[in-house]
Amino acid sequence: MLLENLSYPEVVQYLRDKDTILVPVGSVEQHSEYGIIGTDFIAAEAVAREAGMQLGILVAPTIHYGVSCHHMGFAGSASVSPVTFVHLITDICLSFAHHGFMRIIFVNGHGGNRNAIATAFQEVKMRGAAGQFALLSWYEGLQETALIEELFQGDDGSHATPSEISLTMLLRPEVFAGKKTAPGSLQKKEYCWPLTREEMRSVFPDGRMGSASWLASADKGEQIMALAVRTLVEKIEKLRAVALV
Amino acid sequence: MLLENLSYPEVVQYLRDKDTILVPVGSVEQHSEYGIIGTDFIAAEAVAREAGMQLGILVAPTIHYGVSCHHMGFAGSASVSPVTFVHLITDICLSFAHHGFMRIIFVNGHGGNRNAIATAFQEVKMRGAAGQFALLSWYEGLQETALIEELFQGDDGSHATPSEISLTMLLRPEVFAGKKTAPGSLQKKEYCWPLTREEMRSVFPDGRMGSASWLASADKGEQIMALAVRTLVEKIEKLRAVALV
Amino acid sequence: MLLENLSYPEVVQYLRDKDTILVPVGSVEQHSEYGIIGTDFIAAEAVAREAGMQLGILVAPTIHYGVSCHHMGFAGSASVSPVTFVHLITDICLSFAHHGFMRIIFVNGHGGNRNAIATAFQEVKMRGAAGQFALLSWYEGLQETALIEELFQGDDGSHATPSEISLTMLLRPEVFAGKKTAPGSLQKKEYCWPLTREEMRSVFPDGRMGSASWLASADKGEQIMALAVRTLVEKIEKLRAVALV
Amino acid sequence: MLLENLSYPEVVQYLRDKDTILVPVGSVEQHSEYGIIGTDFIAAEAVAREAGMQLGILVAPTIHYGVSCHHMGFAGSASVSPVTFVHLITDICLSFAHHGFMRIIFVNGHGGNRNAIATAFQEVKMRGAAGQFALLSWYEGLQETALIEELFQGDDGSHATPSEISLTMLLRPEVFAGKKTAPGSLQKKEYCWPLTREEMRSVFPDGRMGSASWLASADKGEQIMALAVRTLVEKIEKLRAVALV
Amino acid sequence: MLLENLSYPEVVQYLRDKDTILVPVGSVEQHSEYGIIGTDFIAAEAVAREAGMQLGILVAPTIHYGVSCHHMGFAGSASVSPVTFVHLITDICLSFAHHGFMRIIFVNGHGGNRNAIATAFQEVKMRGAAGQFALLSWYEGLQETALIEELFQGDDGSHATPSEISLTMLLRPEVFAGKKTAPGSLQKKEYCWPLTREEMRSVFPDGRMGSASWLASADKGEQIMALAVRTLVEKIEKLRAVALV
Amino acid sequence: MLLENLSYPEVVQYLRDKDTILVPVGSVEQHSEYGIIGTDFIAAEAVAREAGMQLGILVAPTIHYGVSCHHMGFAGSASVSPVTFVHLITDICLSFAHHGFMRIIFVNGHGGNRNAIATAFQEVKMRGAAGQFALLSWYEGLQETALIEELFQGDDGSHATPSEISLTMLLRPEVFAGKKTAPGSLQKKEYCWPLTREEMRSVFPDGRMGSASWLASADKGEQIMALAVRTLVEKIEKLRAVALV
Repeated sequence: MLLENLSYPEVVQYLRDKDTILVPVGSVEQHSEYGIIGTDFIAAEAVAREAGMQLGILVAPTIHYGVSCHHMGFAGSASVSPVTFVHLITDICLSFAHHGFMRIIFVNGHGGNRNAIATAFQEVKMRGAAGQFALLSWYEGLQETALIEELFQGDDGSHATPSEISLTMLLRPEVFAGKKTAPGSLQKKEYCWPLTREEMRSVFPDGRMGSASWLASADKGEQIMALAVRTLVEKIEKLRAVALV
Repeated sequence: MLLENLSYPEVVQYLRDKDTILVPVGSVEQHSEYGIIGTDFIAAEAVAREAGMQLGILVAPTIHYGVSCHHMGFAGSASVSPVTFVHLITDICLSFAHHGFMRIIFVNGHGGNRNAIATAFQEVKMRGAAGQFALLSWYEGLQETALIEELFQGDDGSHATPSEISLTMLLRPEVFAGKKTAPGSLQKKEYCWPLTREEMRSVFPDGRMGSASWLASADKGEQIMALAVRTLVEKIEKLRAVALV
Repeated sequence: MLLENLSYPEVVQYLRDKDTILVPVGSVEQHSEYGIIGTDFIAAEAVAREAGMQLGILVAPTIHYGVSCHHMGFAGSASVSPVTFVHLITDICLSFAHHGFMRIIFVNGHGGNRNAIATAFQEVKMRGAAGQFALLSWYEGLQETALIEELFQGDDGSHATPSEISLTMLLRPEVFAGKKTAPGSLQKKEYCWPLTREEMRSVFPDGRMGSASWLASADKGEQIMALAVRTLVEKIEKLRAVALV
Repeated sequence: MLLENLSYPEVVQYLRDKDTILVPVGSVEQHSEYGIIGTDFIAAEAVAREAGMQLGILVAPTIHYGVSCHHMGFAGSASVSPVTFVHLITDICLSFAHHGFMRIIFVNGHGGNRNAIATAFQEVKMRGAAGQFALLSWYEGLQETALIEELFQGDDGSHATPSEISLTMLLRPEVFAGKKTAPGSLQKKEYCWPLTREEMRSVFPDGRMGSASWLASADKGEQIMALAVRTLVEKIEKLRAVALV
Repeated sequence: MLLENLSYPEVVQYLRDKDTILVPVGSVEQHSEYGIIGTDFIAAEAVAREAGMQLGILVAPTIHYGVSCHHMGFAGSASVSPVTFVHLITDICLSFAHHGFMRIIFVNGHGGNRNAIATAFQEVKMRGAAGQFALLSWYEGLQETALIEELFQGDDGSHATPSEISLTMLLRPEVFAGKKTAPGSLQKKEYCWPLTREEMRSVFPDGRMGSASWLASADKGEQIMALAVRTLVEKIEKLRAVALV
Repeated sequence: MLLENLSYPEVVQYLRDKDTILVPVGSVEQHSEYGIIGTDFIAAEAVAREAGMQLGILVAPTIHYGVSCHHMGFAGSASVSPVTFVHLITDICLSFAHHGFMRIIFVNGHGGNRNAIATAFQEVKMRGAAGQFALLSWYEGLQETALIEELFQGDDGSHATPSEISLTMLLRPEVFAGKKTAPGSLQKKEYCWPLTREEMRSVFPDGRMGSASWLASADKGEQIMALAVRTLVEKIEKLRAVALV
């Protein structure tokens, strides 16, 4: 059920009895020496597509690039500026709303995107677009689960987490040859968020933020995937149960 | 300790041994038939100033107008568009940062401002401004306290809350003559946030969002004020304990 | 008659037979060693509110922050960039116009705001908003009066004027303890307006622009207040006498 | 001394001992049935070029299009939106400042441009550009002169003035064949400025604003031209006498 | 050689002896009843990745959403506004340039993106970014080749071309079940480009623009793919042969 | 047939049976030591006006300033930033479209303007403006003609071309006294377009881009003018033959 694989009459057909679309959104940014630059969009896309399939809901093409200014001190990261991202998300929301989608749900894989997406929803509503615009991050609430606690014992951290790296190991096992696997140091740091790219590099020199990234594995990824999809499906069902105005 | 009452050499003096400034931010929007249009900035300003006094921290002039698009269906509301608000907050952050303030803490009274302020912080950091930019909403976490539960028994709601109206009754008792006091209906509604101004008016016809606004009183306001200030002071102290990069 | 103290049904009521709102606008900027950072908004707000009371006209919450780029070389000043200010004023104008206010009159306390406010009015009109959008600066024409000539004998100057400082001494007498009172030098300088913050600091090293700020007093403030309010009331009445299209 | 006729080494040469450039700016808008659409830029350009010649100062290419939203109800008018115009003027200011021009003087022919140009100067200064940015409207102060009083006896008005039409009759005599010449009605109207295009058309149905446009003639244009140039030259000399910071 | 599969130290390593990155860019828009909504990005991505592999050049994540305003009359299309797209591309260019990529080559699959991308390059250069920013559309020049002439005999057209549909049939054969295959009408139309979404729908009612879309097949896709990759590789090599300044 | 010389009722009259307007657009930028800063707009304006006269089509005032960022390393150049230029052209397009012009044809004299103008057309169409928006550069296709080959034998180049300089020599013979005429060096260079102003200065130190500018003459200008006008007239006729939607 990927929008990209439909012709427009098939979209018209879909809209006859359904009103929801999922929009995966990620980032292009460093995930330490252990993880890969596409981590956020790879994870968000996979979880969204699996949920979409289970629910018979259309999934839009993934928005790959997000707001990653603070990672720009690490090679390969590419960032959209926050205000441009607000405009981009606004345009995409208005596009789908124009065709009659009434529940437009972003499935997010990157914390740095949240504020701008939520700001875009307010812009969209200011311009009078009817319907539901929602933001669900696949990882939200996961750290509090027994599974993550058991798998990583409190060291999932906040960036280059073994959770998200496990997911990518599951989804793209072939690309991890040659990546670092040896454990690194683990100091919990307090810091003021957000950071400039210089501050980020200075506080978190290897790009991890309190994460024991080396604990990741494809096997764990399988367990996390199942949990993440189950959780997302539940959240989407809850959203769709809310009556539209 | 109000910035507005200082001359510039006094600010220079202040910056010799302190690095923090509080910036109250509110909104100009309807608060039902029970509450007043200035509720959000009156509350945020009062809590911020009291906290500032207790901590010996400077308080900047209040940003009165916020993002209130969804309230525009009710007379007297005035809204800054989300993107303009991002630019406004960015400019103010960069101004204080320019003078050497290293901890710029917004004390917020309106939920609709949160995304745009947080987006502005990311803009500010993208442009390389050092230091801590933080957003604290005075009401955050309050509903979970025993006090609010005891005072309003689960009916504080989300807009025109008896909490915030109580605060304004404490602070501006003289303006409540003639305002509505009789109880209204109380139906808990599910809804998709955010809303257009038409949707808002349709879902919440009198501007309350699940709030038993009539339970407000100046006496309760006094208790809430004390709790809110205490909570804010603690949060600010925690923020200031975080080392700068 | 402060908008902030009304509930929305009271605004509806007001709009049944009135169509005017006053919007005070100031700045957050240095006013030399003699005056205080809030001078512009304190003065504009006080004069606007007194005029509003005399005329039975609603007064909106004050816009505290204005365009003060050239004062950024002095600690404590905070500036909105000119283009952002145009957008901000546009949003506020459109908000009040949306509710049916047909005469939206800005009462200004800061010269640096004038161009951007007037530009915003043109934006608002370009977007088709009906009615009157007017800008009145409380100090305009004052220097030519006999009173100001008598009080300051040609040395009122253009920034940190004894006029405006007198007003703040009247309104906030308690904050002047410890401020500078000794006379400074008074050289009339020619300069090209506007200035960068570096140029401002270089041409006017202590932040005054030809003003004998030390001549300010609360007593003089009382006389100036009376004159300023009388003048503003007259100007507003003249504006309201102009028929709407 | 037109910039457009120089090669770049000649500009380098000019900048060795001079620092000033004049930038004519007009509008493309209706000037009633009596006058022509190019009136504002034709007049500004002619006055600026004559002044430039007398003073040995370079004149830049004319900015033809200005802010004319309120004239859009009359065919042939073309308007730049106020905010776009701020950006345009900012870009042009920064361009000339980049090459080392230290006195950039706009010679304006259209009232609707003034606010946006002045706002642009503040933007330019906020970005740190050194030097003098000035705005002179060729018609400013003219109505108060004995000449204009004598020529038009108080009926010069504010748009499609016989003054400006006289100038264009002098400069482009060949294009007035077939234009209206018969007197129209002359009612002085009070109005609230600015106006929407609908309001403009409704208040001033034939595009004149209190002007006895039919009094224009090429002979009067000659007298006005002489006065306008003399006045402009004086103002420019005064500006150039002000020391740069 | 996908950027998304690297860790940041691997990017650092790559940049030691290489300086080029390919950025595929497409659109999310209808491709008639015969083709699929993802056509443009699927084709651009595949061609870019194959070329990247042959040349040992890194390929960035695909920009899926492009400028498709004129297709908004057909369900499922999603468009970024032209100005937002300029800002988006500018941000991505500046990101890669920041890390030291000196040859940033966009591989484009959608004509509607060309102007905005080229405008973004000018913005990037205005801001001083060194290096080569180039735009190559994979289909450019293809219609003039013997292969396309032979395959489609002059009926490749301009939108929903059998060329691009053939490519997607090769790349995603499984999604074409149920799509239209029966020939439609083929009238060559003259039209003025660009079109509004209403004009587009009116001139090209089924979304094709002179294309015999039914002639597409996976077999032809294979031949076209080979030619497109060969052509792109040659163009990239030519670009890389140009010395940097 | 210049718009600037008409009164608005004459424009109304024109629109009764015609629907086309030509808008010349140029740039203010160096054209080497041989040519003049106004070259682009002088040429575009002259060709457009002659074509307009032959066709009985209205010609709008020329847009003098264009996108010339890369020439800012040479004194006297003035550039509008690409995004501002998109907004400017959009405003002008919407203005003429508002009055009922259905074929708005820009006659361009500067390559650097092309992308932004074409992007503006897409903005205009996104906003729903009906009709034809077209961009014709007077020099396009000229280099391939026998005339140019014969006159300059392959050395017309890409900037400060003897073609365009010849045109200005024809049109403004009096301004060439004292300009350089001696031949310079002629090396064909490969380069990556676009360039920063520093790169431009470094690759093309005297501002020419492969052009034998010294070959220009007023006589050749006459021949080129005739050819350029003939070509433009043909292109315009072809455009006007296309039916509107």
